[in-house]
Amino acid sequence: MAFQFEILKKDSSSQARLGRIVTHHGAIMTPAFLPVGTQGTVKSLTPEELAEVGVEGILGNTYHLYLKPGHETIARLGGLHRFIHWEKPILTDSGGYQIFSLAKLRKISEDGVTFQSHIDGSEHFLTPEKVMEIQRTLGSDIAMVLDECVPYPSSHEYVMASTKLTTFWAERCLKARRSDDPALFGIVQGGMYRDLREESARDLTRLDFQGYAIGGLSVGEPKSIMQDVLEWTAPFLPDKSPRYLMGVGTPEDILHATLQGIDLFDCVLPTRNARNGMLFTSRGKISIKQARYAEDPGPIDESCLCYSCRHYSRAYLRHLYLANEILSSRLNTIHNIYYYMELMKEIRKAIQEERLSQLCQTSIFRVNGLQEEQSDQRQTAFL
Amino acid sequence: MAFQFEILKKDSSSQARLGRIVTHHGAIMTPAFLPVGTQGTVKSLTPEELAEVGVEGILGNTYHLYLKPGHETIARLGGLHRFIHWEKPILTDSGGYQIFSLAKLRKISEDGVTFQSHIDGSEHFLTPEKVMEIQRTLGSDIAMVLDECVPYPSSHEYVMASTKLTTFWAERCLKARRSDDPALFGIVQGGMYRDLREESARDLTRLDFQGYAIGGLSVGEPKSIMQDVLEWTAPFLPDKSPRYLMGVGTPEDILHATLQGIDLFDCVLPTRNARNGMLFTSRGKISIKQARYAEDPGPIDESCLCYSCRHYSRAYLRHLYLANEILSSRLNTIHNIYYYMELMKEIRKAIQEERLSQLCQTSIFRVNGLQEEQSDQRQTAFL
Repeated sequence: MAFQFEILKKDSSSQARLGRIVTHHGAIMTPAFLPVGTQGTVKSLTPEELAEVGVEGILGNTYHLYLKPGHETIARLGGLHRFIHWEKPILTDSGGYQIFSLAKLRKISEDGVTFQSHIDGSEHFLTPEKVMEIQRTLGSDIAMVLDECVPYPSSHEYVMASTKLTTFWAERCLKARRSDDPALFGIVQGGMYRDLREESARDLTRLDFQGYAIGGLSVGEPKSIMQDVLEWTAPFLPDKSPRYLMGVGTPEDILHATLQGIDLFDCVLPTRNARNGMLFTSRGKISIKQARYAEDPGPIDESCLCYSCRHYSRAYLRHLYLANEILSSRLNTIHNIYYYMELMKEIRKAIQEERLSQLCQTSIFRVNGLQEEQSDQRQTAFL
Repeated sequence: MAFQFEILKKDSSSQARLGRIVTHHGAIMTPAFLPVGTQGTVKSLTPEELAEVGVEGILGNTYHLYLKPGHETIARLGGLHRFIHWEKPILTDSGGYQIFSLAKLRKISEDGVTFQSHIDGSEHFLTPEKVMEIQRTLGSDIAMVLDECVPYPSSHEYVMASTKLTTFWAERCLKARRSDDPALFGIVQGGMYRDLREESARDLTRLDFQGYAIGGLSVGEPKSIMQDVLEWTAPFLPDKSPRYLMGVGTPEDILHATLQGIDLFDCVLPTRNARNGMLFTSRGKISIKQARYAEDPGPIDESCLCYSCRHYSRAYLRHLYLANEILSSRLNTIHNIYYYMELMKEIRKAIQEERLSQLCQTSIFRVNGLQEEQSDQRQTAFL
């Protein structure tokens, strides 16, 4: 299989590591952030724009692509990469998260999960094997096992049974694997329970996955739980495999998880925030719709070199946002993705230069501490 | 004043001419089509993308920019060009058309027009002098006089009075002109009445405008009336000045008007159609949402070299459209604007090479005759 992961450098004062994932479609330097391309497009951007800001890999949502336009359609059109004109690596999730957050009338059995499409109500049945087939058919570079993503809060009893099921499904995914399949990552579940997280991690790491994800976070739990789960789980994951924290997160979350040894991240935050006019800057998040920017001739961030900051004023971006113009989403998304890519670049550089702990003290990460409009003490407490 | 117009070549078998408009912000080869940037953006595209497909000038809507974000705000931010990051020529309309199509509770007097904003109901009073001031403040390259755009149908009596008012306002615009003002174009009105069109043209051409527009078309009248009005009006417009047919139109409309000696066009058609999934091709218009394209691996138009056609299938574009993705509007708009720019390039080349009448017979213009999904006999009858 084409998949490789090598660690280039370990941080001496934390679990952080600088690494490289190699796939059929090229390499991803880690720690890496994968923008989310839910429906076969990272919303509002072209692949060229993604590459220009330094994106090396994106995430595709199996649930969405399976429902629309359908994985078989995509396969007949040459696979996902060709279909969406993105020639770099694609990680596909298994659909588990969406089935448990978007779909209706879910019914879980040992066999798999039945659900109704959130689009048209049509009924579908997905099994671990089927999810493997879909991701194979899409031509993904990194596939994820089918998992049950339990809501927060859930009882210990429920989560224990669910975690056992996820492990059972993970074994079935492995058994269904073919020699030319994407790399396959297991997903540690276990909700907010330390014993279940440890058990899940131990059970899965006995199996032959090419990487390990931590799932079930960002489901509404308090921030402090994410830290706990990371601290409980990460030490059980093999050093030699990439570790992927699914659906996370804010710059602070990412930095914190990097210190715990996480290598991969994905999140809709930079893209969704952009469309809502929330922009990340070196001095904190700003909401571009605020009246204070009505005649502000400056860029989003004085220290940013992205296309949007090089050419447009906050006043213009505010105008576009209020006028509901498509260009608003584009320029904001370019900026936020650029911010995330620069963040990851800084993290990788800091690991290389043995100064990751110092980096934590610099302003680029203290975005919530200094943020202009929101105060979230939980997030500030992180740093 | 920086404005110049020179005719480089006249067609020997029609009134068509190849020319060049020169402004402070560069030149526009004519016949030219100006995409519409209503609210300070040609919807969904960046200025770089416009330039890349060959756009040399765009239209800005005074009515919209006056209301939001306000011409004085734009002036304080360095003028419209700098505000929207477009350094090539901008033609601004006077707001007349929008006041008479979008705004509410209009009240016209000799002085000017009172109306309520379609956005927030606020009351505004625009005079010929005020409209000049707004366009000056925006930093437009070509300004238009305030006119009353009468609805179709309107009585001869009403249109006669209205046309006299438009001429009176045009005189006041001229009187209000300063030495550093944009070039100023008069607007021939007169509804669907030959005598009034002729009178309007004669009255206006006695005045010292740098160009002449034909207004009041595309207001719901039958296609044949547009031809009539063009034939009645164009011969009265001075040869040495650019002639601008406002708000027009389809490729067929543009070709027909070019034969009558029109040099400038603007229309929301290519951009609006794009967002609605209607794409212009050398074989006719197509609606990308149609089921027939669900697995079509070909580009929108086999003979098109635009970015969208070089990289994406009809199947992907259909998927993006149905998934309501922003990238759909972008890729469709790039294609349609490219189509219009290639059309204008072909027209200019044909005038240069004395083969405009032959061009009318070639397929690129017979888009409605061959169109795949709509049949509009009126339009087909044009050619």
